[in-house]
Amino acid sequence: HYVKMVHNGIEYGIMACIAETYDIMTRVLNLKAPEVGRIMGGWNQAELGSYLMEITEVCLGYVDKEAKKPLVDLILDEAGQKGTGKWTSQDAFDVGVPIPTIDCAVIDRVLSAFKEEREKASDVLPGPAGRPTVDRDALLEDLRAALYASVITSYAQGMTLLRWASKENGFQLNLAEIARIWKGGCIIRAKLLDPIKQAFADDPDLVNLMVAAPFAQILTDAQVGWRRAVTTAVQAGVPCLALGASLAYFDSYHSARLPANLIQAQRDYFGAHTYERIDKEGSFHTQWEGKS
Amino acid sequence: HYVKMVHNGIEYGIMACIAETYDIMTRVLNLKAPEVGRIMGGWNQAELGSYLMEITEVCLGYVDKEAKKPLVDLILDEAGQKGTGKWTSQDAFDVGVPIPTIDCAVIDRVLSAFKEEREKASDVLPGPAGRPTVDRDALLEDLRAALYASVITSYAQGMTLLRWASKENGFQLNLAEIARIWKGGCIIRAKLLDPIKQAFADDPDLVNLMVAAPFAQILTDAQVGWRRAVTTAVQAGVPCLALGASLAYFDSYHSARLPANLIQAQRDYFGAHTYERIDKEGSFHTQWEGKS
Repeated sequence: HYVKMVHNGIEYGIMACIAETYDIMTRVLNLKAPEVGRIMGGWNQAELGSYLMEITEVCLGYVDKEAKKPLVDLILDEAGQKGTGKWTSQDAFDVGVPIPTIDCAVIDRVLSAFKEEREKASDVLPGPAGRPTVDRDALLEDLRAALYASVITSYAQGMTLLRWASKENGFQLNLAEIARIWKGGCIIRAKLLDPIKQAFADDPDLVNLMVAAPFAQILTDAQVGWRRAVTTAVQAGVPCLALGASLAYFDSYHSARLPANLIQAQRDYFGAHTYERIDKEGSFHTQWEGKS
Repeated sequence: HYVKMVHNGIEYGIMACIAETYDIMTRVLNLKAPEVGRIMGGWNQAELGSYLMEITEVCLGYVDKEAKKPLVDLILDEAGQKGTGKWTSQDAFDVGVPIPTIDCAVIDRVLSAFKEEREKASDVLPGPAGRPTVDRDALLEDLRAALYASVITSYAQGMTLLRWASKENGFQLNLAEIARIWKGGCIIRAKLLDPIKQAFADDPDLVNLMVAAPFAQILTDAQVGWRRAVTTAVQAGVPCLALGASLAYFDSYHSARLPANLIQAQRDYFGAHTYERIDKEGSFHTQWEGKS
């Protein structure tokens, strides 16, 4: 049940990244749903090949016979959820594993449910003035890189959660075997699961999918387009919570030094929580000056 | 206890935004800790005036007498937590209120704890080639706008969570009174709490702090700098999970239309979960073509 729950968390992550990519294409490039579907269908033929991309093409291309419009344009933009994504997020906080792509995917759904508030807020809070000038084909390539890299971080986060939950609970999970099982019949089945299976078969103690050589290379190659896609969305005022969180996860994970030293100083200041140092062993407390 | 828990969640959010701002100043502008402290101290004199900004200046300016270096530079960058931020995040998922700034603040701390993995990953996963060319003073003004706006979203999220948790549990919370109480003695005390108190006194049913007239104006004015600060960090490879999530929260909240319609189409495709429409009442299910 735990593995199925995390499967669903990864599914939430991937679906959110696909939806945000569709939103950027729609709002920045003015593409119609069937056009977006055809582009995603093309991506489905290569490295992004997966069941979710396949059905995305079908969903975006489906025309409502009565209204003679793309059906997705008539569907209310309030996402439902049965709870498995939420449980994955809640449990990951307890296990102490960062899964921001999945968390942000759940938040995307929660935010969507505030439809009436959003409609009212759109009258009060304007987006940015003007639209960024972008080259259509260049942005599409950047979005493809961003989606691919973000999907990888979603798997990386789910697998890392399984790794630590397995240690904590004595599940003795075999991550290569789980990747193999996910290749058939389930919603996150994808071409990517072959190299994922291989990475964990080669190194059962792999701490994070992102540092396995083939994935490190993919992410390194993707990062230029990934950054441009996210900055374009930010400039255009199109929310990309999950795509942006995926990139921040990547950037945090390869940062040898993060600003948590300041957090520790502040916590020691106001709560005497003590801190550790990089130049000597032990726990330290400082009587910070100017304490009010 | 619930109000104190959410107080701490807001505190996590603000501290993460301050820490990320410090990190961007350090890594993009090469500023030393005491310089960052002096800049933050200047900001503390105006709209960002608060206890947390005050102690940030002290913490960044403190020199270790033995090492003759800024003490923060010697503090290990692994943040501790006692659980109140995590509980806020976990409970917000149950209440169904989006608090991405707070969630991402908790995740920042969780990520920081993977110090050894981060150090190894920094050898395998390179950041972007080259540094973005930026004007020092312009970026500092953008960061100030980004920090101010993100701090407001942190309060907005916490207040919205209190509003819904109060409804659900019959707490009968008075949000204006809570803002007033927080002005004295607690860690998130800040000048901002005066207009926050006023906003909820003027309208006890205010659905979100961001749409109260004074805050809508502040966020509208701040958004240009906010977007530039986030895009600069993204281009430079400096993680800004909480600042970026704050902006995505703002952008999602003022989006009358979000791409959750696609999520609903996909869920109906693979799970027959049904969907609602914008053009007629009821629940609908479609036999999507090409189903595999």
